[in-house]
Amino acid sequence: MNRPAAAYDFVVRGATVLTSADSFVGDIAVADGRVAALGAVEAGTAEIVDARGLVAVPGGVDAHTHFDMPFAGGTTADDFETGTRAALFGGTTTIIDFATQRRGASLLSALEAWHAKADGRCLADYAFHMAITDFSARASAEVERLAREGVTSLKLYLAYPGTLMSEDDAVLRALRRSNEVGALVSLHCENGRAIAELVRRALREGRRGCANHPLTRPPELEAEAVRRAAALARAARAPVYLVHLSAAESLETVRRCRQGGAFVLAETCPQYLYLSAREYERPGLAAAPFVVCPPLRSREDAQALWAGLAAGEFQAVASDHCSFPARTRPGRPGKDRGRRDFSRVPGGAPGVETRLPLLWEAVQRGDISTGRFVELAACGPAKAFGLYPRKGHLNPGADADIVLIDPRHRAAITARALHHAVDYTPFEGLTVHGAVRDVWLRGKRMLSQGRLLGRPGDGRYISRSRRQFCL
Amino acid sequence: MNRPAAAYDFVVRGATVLTSADSFVGDIAVADGRVAALGAVEAGTAEIVDARGLVAVPGGVDAHTHFDMPFAGGTTADDFETGTRAALFGGTTTIIDFATQRRGASLLSALEAWHAKADGRCLADYAFHMAITDFSARASAEVERLAREGVTSLKLYLAYPGTLMSEDDAVLRALRRSNEVGALVSLHCENGRAIAELVRRALREGRRGCANHPLTRPPELEAEAVRRAAALARAARAPVYLVHLSAAESLETVRRCRQGGAFVLAETCPQYLYLSAREYERPGLAAAPFVVCPPLRSREDAQALWAGLAAGEFQAVASDHCSFPARTRPGRPGKDRGRRDFSRVPGGAPGVETRLPLLWEAVQRGDISTGRFVELAACGPAKAFGLYPRKGHLNPGADADIVLIDPRHRAAITARALHHAVDYTPFEGLTVHGAVRDVWLRGKRMLSQGRLLGRPGDGRYISRSRRQFCL
Amino acid sequence: MNRPAAAYDFVVRGATVLTSADSFVGDIAVADGRVAALGAVEAGTAEIVDARGLVAVPGGVDAHTHFDMPFAGGTTADDFETGTRAALFGGTTTIIDFATQRRGASLLSALEAWHAKADGRCLADYAFHMAITDFSARASAEVERLAREGVTSLKLYLAYPGTLMSEDDAVLRALRRSNEVGALVSLHCENGRAIAELVRRALREGRRGCANHPLTRPPELEAEAVRRAAALARAARAPVYLVHLSAAESLETVRRCRQGGAFVLAETCPQYLYLSAREYERPGLAAAPFVVCPPLRSREDAQALWAGLAAGEFQAVASDHCSFPARTRPGRPGKDRGRRDFSRVPGGAPGVETRLPLLWEAVQRGDISTGRFVELAACGPAKAFGLYPRKGHLNPGADADIVLIDPRHRAAITARALHHAVDYTPFEGLTVHGAVRDVWLRGKRMLSQGRLLGRPGDGRYISRSRRQFCL
Amino acid sequence: MNRPAAAYDFVVRGATVLTSADSFVGDIAVADGRVAALGAVEAGTAEIVDARGLVAVPGGVDAHTHFDMPFAGGTTADDFETGTRAALFGGTTTIIDFATQRRGASLLSALEAWHAKADGRCLADYAFHMAITDFSARASAEVERLAREGVTSLKLYLAYPGTLMSEDDAVLRALRRSNEVGALVSLHCENGRAIAELVRRALREGRRGCANHPLTRPPELEAEAVRRAAALARAARAPVYLVHLSAAESLETVRRCRQGGAFVLAETCPQYLYLSAREYERPGLAAAPFVVCPPLRSREDAQALWAGLAAGEFQAVASDHCSFPARTRPGRPGKDRGRRDFSRVPGGAPGVETRLPLLWEAVQRGDISTGRFVELAACGPAKAFGLYPRKGHLNPGADADIVLIDPRHRAAITARALHHAVDYTPFEGLTVHGAVRDVWLRGKRMLSQGRLLGRPGDGRYISRSRRQFCL
Repeated sequence: MNRPAAAYDFVVRGATVLTSADSFVGDIAVADGRVAALGAVEAGTAEIVDARGLVAVPGGVDAHTHFDMPFAGGTTADDFETGTRAALFGGTTTIIDFATQRRGASLLSALEAWHAKADGRCLADYAFHMAITDFSARASAEVERLAREGVTSLKLYLAYPGTLMSEDDAVLRALRRSNEVGALVSLHCENGRAIAELVRRALREGRRGCANHPLTRPPELEAEAVRRAAALARAARAPVYLVHLSAAESLETVRRCRQGGAFVLAETCPQYLYLSAREYERPGLAAAPFVVCPPLRSREDAQALWAGLAAGEFQAVASDHCSFPARTRPGRPGKDRGRRDFSRVPGGAPGVETRLPLLWEAVQRGDISTGRFVELAACGPAKAFGLYPRKGHLNPGADADIVLIDPRHRAAITARALHHAVDYTPFEGLTVHGAVRDVWLRGKRMLSQGRLLGRPGDGRYISRSRRQFCL
Repeated sequence: MNRPAAAYDFVVRGATVLTSADSFVGDIAVADGRVAALGAVEAGTAEIVDARGLVAVPGGVDAHTHFDMPFAGGTTADDFETGTRAALFGGTTTIIDFATQRRGASLLSALEAWHAKADGRCLADYAFHMAITDFSARASAEVERLAREGVTSLKLYLAYPGTLMSEDDAVLRALRRSNEVGALVSLHCENGRAIAELVRRALREGRRGCANHPLTRPPELEAEAVRRAAALARAARAPVYLVHLSAAESLETVRRCRQGGAFVLAETCPQYLYLSAREYERPGLAAAPFVVCPPLRSREDAQALWAGLAAGEFQAVASDHCSFPARTRPGRPGKDRGRRDFSRVPGGAPGVETRLPLLWEAVQRGDISTGRFVELAACGPAKAFGLYPRKGHLNPGADADIVLIDPRHRAAITARALHHAVDYTPFEGLTVHGAVRDVWLRGKRMLSQGRLLGRPGDGRYISRSRRQFCL
Repeated sequence: MNRPAAAYDFVVRGATVLTSADSFVGDIAVADGRVAALGAVEAGTAEIVDARGLVAVPGGVDAHTHFDMPFAGGTTADDFETGTRAALFGGTTTIIDFATQRRGASLLSALEAWHAKADGRCLADYAFHMAITDFSARASAEVERLAREGVTSLKLYLAYPGTLMSEDDAVLRALRRSNEVGALVSLHCENGRAIAELVRRALREGRRGCANHPLTRPPELEAEAVRRAAALARAARAPVYLVHLSAAESLETVRRCRQGGAFVLAETCPQYLYLSAREYERPGLAAAPFVVCPPLRSREDAQALWAGLAAGEFQAVASDHCSFPARTRPGRPGKDRGRRDFSRVPGGAPGVETRLPLLWEAVQRGDISTGRFVELAACGPAKAFGLYPRKGHLNPGADADIVLIDPRHRAAITARALHHAVDYTPFEGLTVHGAVRDVWLRGKRMLSQGRLLGRPGDGRYISRSRRQFCL
Repeated sequence: MNRPAAAYDFVVRGATVLTSADSFVGDIAVADGRVAALGAVEAGTAEIVDARGLVAVPGGVDAHTHFDMPFAGGTTADDFETGTRAALFGGTTTIIDFATQRRGASLLSALEAWHAKADGRCLADYAFHMAITDFSARASAEVERLAREGVTSLKLYLAYPGTLMSEDDAVLRALRRSNEVGALVSLHCENGRAIAELVRRALREGRRGCANHPLTRPPELEAEAVRRAAALARAARAPVYLVHLSAAESLETVRRCRQGGAFVLAETCPQYLYLSAREYERPGLAAAPFVVCPPLRSREDAQALWAGLAAGEFQAVASDHCSFPARTRPGRPGKDRGRRDFSRVPGGAPGVETRLPLLWEAVQRGDISTGRFVELAACGPAKAFGLYPRKGHLNPGADADIVLIDPRHRAAITARALHHAVDYTPFEGLTVHGAVRDVWLRGKRMLSQGRLLGRPGDGRYISRSRRQFCL
């Protein structure tokens, strides 16, 4: 019955350890890349990392990145190497990116293509969603195989008609089919056709600047799509995960749909929490870096989202990292594409490195508890997307993805100090308390006192499990 | 200043006269086809109609009929003659039918075609909505001309993909354009594509009977479309009129959208109030006569609709009269088309003659007040669709469309006693109190103690005015 | 069957006549003090009043006045003569005042006392509510007798502990007992004890100015009492009428309680619609004239009330006329009683003369329709309190209480031009369109082109009927 | 930096350990009465408890018991010895009981009295709320002293006029004062006066059986008091904890009040979850054991409460253990007091021993997750009432209050098998899965494989800390 002496590899000693419910001051013992024990443990011969005064949190899980994403004959600025390096510096040890089906093509070939992009290049663990552009019979048939390959989530778009948008019947089919195999559908909720009409009208009327971006994507057309998504999910008797909610009305709609029996998981992003549509008042292309879809909203919207986070109405905060440079370079379409037409600005902003620090800042400001921090930054997305119990928490048995935060640090976010491949951050100048100091990935030290030790290839593909939560 | 003696044509004496707010016992004096005076009036030499013990109400306005409607190479069973004759027997003196655009064709040609169907054949006054199947630039350009022709409402469908359905951008355009010219858009709210998917699935699984009709058109797919309609209307800053709401969830959605600032007018029909989905449990084709879209719902849904009527949340009760015979005849596709496939049953039921009596029955049962009766049966639809102040009430100046109800009468509804051109009524056997006894149309006596005096051609086309209610 | 020539007393010719649903241009014929006929009528030998270009509306019904009300050893400034004279100038032909039970005394003696105050002095018709201070067994026993005397409504206070406040069990008993005899209970909804505590605290902390009035009577303590009132009404299975709602939260609470099955009638007042709490920022006693209970609220609250009026959520707009002079005179306690303690300012403001004109102004501004105007100013309170069908509308058979408004008039409200017995109006300087020009009371001309013809004693006591609306 | 070998006292090995967010299979090492480490630990010379196949949960925290409570000249049947013994057998290691102020007396004297009742007799740790009957100035002055003594919560009653009930101003004062010192007010929400009126009426009408118990305490009078409590809390800018919510409408009210900005913590009890008002249909005194206040409600109410538990809307499930024997004995008033008058039945039921097992059963039925179980049974009440981080969870540093559940066990609850001092349980015959097998209290083994090792006096008084959650 007694066991041989626990041979820990190393012990992080004396940190304030955060779990998604509680916290305590003590040790984290790691063995074989996993958390072996918590509390007052005997280190024996194991290395000891003095973490007194630091906060230990589980490595962040960012469920929404777009690295090396094809666009307009090029790709987004960050590839899997620069993207995951930035993630690491920001305390995120697992990302889930979107393999994207080409219209008419198979899902498995998309998965293969994305493996080719990522394999051997990552400094954080990674997994894939499958972004659907054409939920054909063939695609439907591949869903089970995808799940076996660890891709247990599909994403469909209610926006972007003509390119990414799926029709409601395809969404319904995808929800049903996914549910059969234990996969989860996530949806981008904006009414694509109505927005296209508003955009056409704006352009026809000569309204071409970025100030028209939010006007042509009003909150009611997001909330409408949220309601539609929930209705389709109910009709399919399936859960649904809604990405990047931005508006108070959307959250209120989620609330009501849940009360009506829909099983809806919801995500928002730091940009919708910390920024507002006032950014679009900047002149000319100065507003372009802030063009994201859905657009930034009002301060009241942001306030409602904060309240929703605090109340446990969101399951995840993701970055939706999608980086385009200010200026177009060869193979790198830039924000300046929209010089004469706001609708041609490639939508998206970098955020994988700032996501977890901005959530930590919310703890410092009293907007969310430490428990909520762990849930939104790591545990929630891990549970939603089949990474739990390997990822997302620090209990014994979990991957030793450990992040030490120095809570005394205080600095403004600047593009210069970040590690992604574009030269701006929408959060420029925002002061945050706390800095990511050390990061372990499956027990391997990747960041040490802010110095990078990890290398491309240290990050591994994580085959995600099928949905386990009950419906 | 004094005027010559009022030369009334006739005086209806001693009725209980209902207005949409009040009632009184007194006279209605008619001159030149209009209501000249109310109260205690001196008849002079005018004919006197003794109406003591009877109830005088304004002639009913049915804003939703489908007479002589093309379908499957034939038409609905009732044409404008049989349809308006039935209307008259049911106390309805004005109907609004749907001229329907052929895909790709012009709106004005559709209007012309419908005038040809109706002119000279009607026994009640009539007007047209324009049903849109293709809101092209050409169609958009015709809207102003239509309005000048008295067609101040368009109807679009969110259901029936491939035939009638419009995409959301077309709906948005139609809302905007209509609002510019003071026309109103009405929408059939069901999610066409999602329903098509549920139907395909049902058929694929061999579920082919009418019991699948309500299962493939669940309430959440109606409520979803209601929410979408309201969002599009808000985006267009236009009002919207939602036809034939059938479900509690839809009404609740209307309520919330109104609170959110949408200007939504709502209609329901007697079939959703008096019948329920239990009719679909009948074996084989016995259920087919009850196939209407949206389908009949639960008793709880009906109860919620009744409460909504009482609370003033609906602006109109319409019949959605759309009559198909049980058996297909040449040129008259029948309910038996769905013998092996419920989705092929032509949807619709007759109701133009029973609509007003069923609303009067609701007064007798205490479900609605007399004021609400007038509003829902006549005044509400007249106001919504630009027929007011000519139609829908009995104030001085209004058309003398007068209906006398004998409140002591009590009888069961039977198809045999009705005047439409199909041999069934979904309300067979339902006992109603009160009978339509006399009807005047613009002062002309059309029905006298139940005997028909009017003739085809007595009914005239009514050019409707543009929207007057404020937004 | 034919009747003798209608011998009208006079005919108001050519006015735009408003009913609560509709309007028309035509005549109003009056005989025997009642409306005899509407429309185009033959005047015969009757006097003709040329009303072309004017608007004829039913005489206003103000369901909430406090004339000759005992307070602090004196009374309010207006007695039944000055009060009803002011009413008349403001187009109000019926008022309902509050006979108030002395603690421990009988209700009938209070009624007798109030008859003594009013009889022979009124220039408008009048009726009484019974204000309860002590719903004892004896009081309960008197309710049936009161109803027979035409007092078919009780009022209880959830505010003012120690003087007027009733405990919840007394309210429950009163609701039940009143319902048995067809009487209606109205309630002043504010949590008296909690407010008293907030006031004590404010005074203890040395906060003594009128700016503390709204702070110590926050909207949540009104909304709380609204919810309580509705719960007690539900427990008693009785309807309830809530006086002078002032806050958005209260209206929202009413809405929810109605959805939960409570039968709640609601009233608000012009001061809550046109004014705001910013008045309390005036220095010293300058704010005292605006001290009313509940206090004036924010502009957002007012906006919510306007929306509620437009949507038909209120049944009446009353004045809550309760006039105290700025300076105390013998027998007339004044607003200056609160010089050193805001809680000693006698609460109330004059408004009986400005109520109907301010509602008409709302029509001009597009805030409410003419139908809603009639409903809120006359028909709604008449129906709620058993004055209908005699009062509140202009249908044949109703009392010929007719008001002609000259819609082209435009002037600012000034205390100088008003006829009540205090020298201020809270609406000083507010410009209104439309002026009351002529008033008939039961066919007797009381006001002619702005000149007073009526005399004290022309107003009669109206014995109100029991509740007729269904529950 | 390195530490000496961890000298654990014992190690619970191989259990499935539940935290409020997660679970893992591993060890719990205990030293000095506290959890020292979790996971794979080296036991060294420490005793090893083989817990493979068992589930380890934190010792339950029951925040609502009434042991040795004075009533009708006697006391409840359970004293602190029998009560805490029963608690222990049910896996509960900490209870919070109510020291109750005598009207007019000091709070400190009540605390003293309750210490005398409990000290040296308990087998579980215990703390005290202070139940207020008279929040006088003196009482207010004692609140700070109470907090220093570890009594950081007051309880007031909106029910029971004449004995326990506080008026709203007293509640407001108590909320304010408590908030100043970091104490929490809990409230019993039922409208005492309205209920008293309903009871008087029932008795007057000769309705004397227990079937009248729920009829005289309808859900709307609970929901009303909930709304009132929240309004007073908002007015005081203080949090509030609502005990034993029983009705769907109450929960819905909590939801809306939270959305309106009130900080409301909520508790329910197993009786409201597993039982219903149908128990009151039992004849004669057979219904009396089920008389609790608020009463048992409908199955729909219970369903709504379950949904609320699952959704995280409650912070605690407490027993409200209040045991009266079926038959009155000397010093032990019994349920038979209500033989001729249901209102004289002493309200309450035993439940301290069945609480945690019934929550565990809910996990087995899929009604709540294991995380929610820990939260509701232990962590939530510990956090609400200042016992956290000592109590309520199993993280390193917490008191070693450990409960091992044998999940394979399955048995019906029977009074015979329970350890409290009355001979019935309202849950008689209800089958539950899982049995409490072993219990440690601060590292001391109190129950071993179902055998009692602990003794009176092993339980200690826990001085609770002040409120730490942010408002």
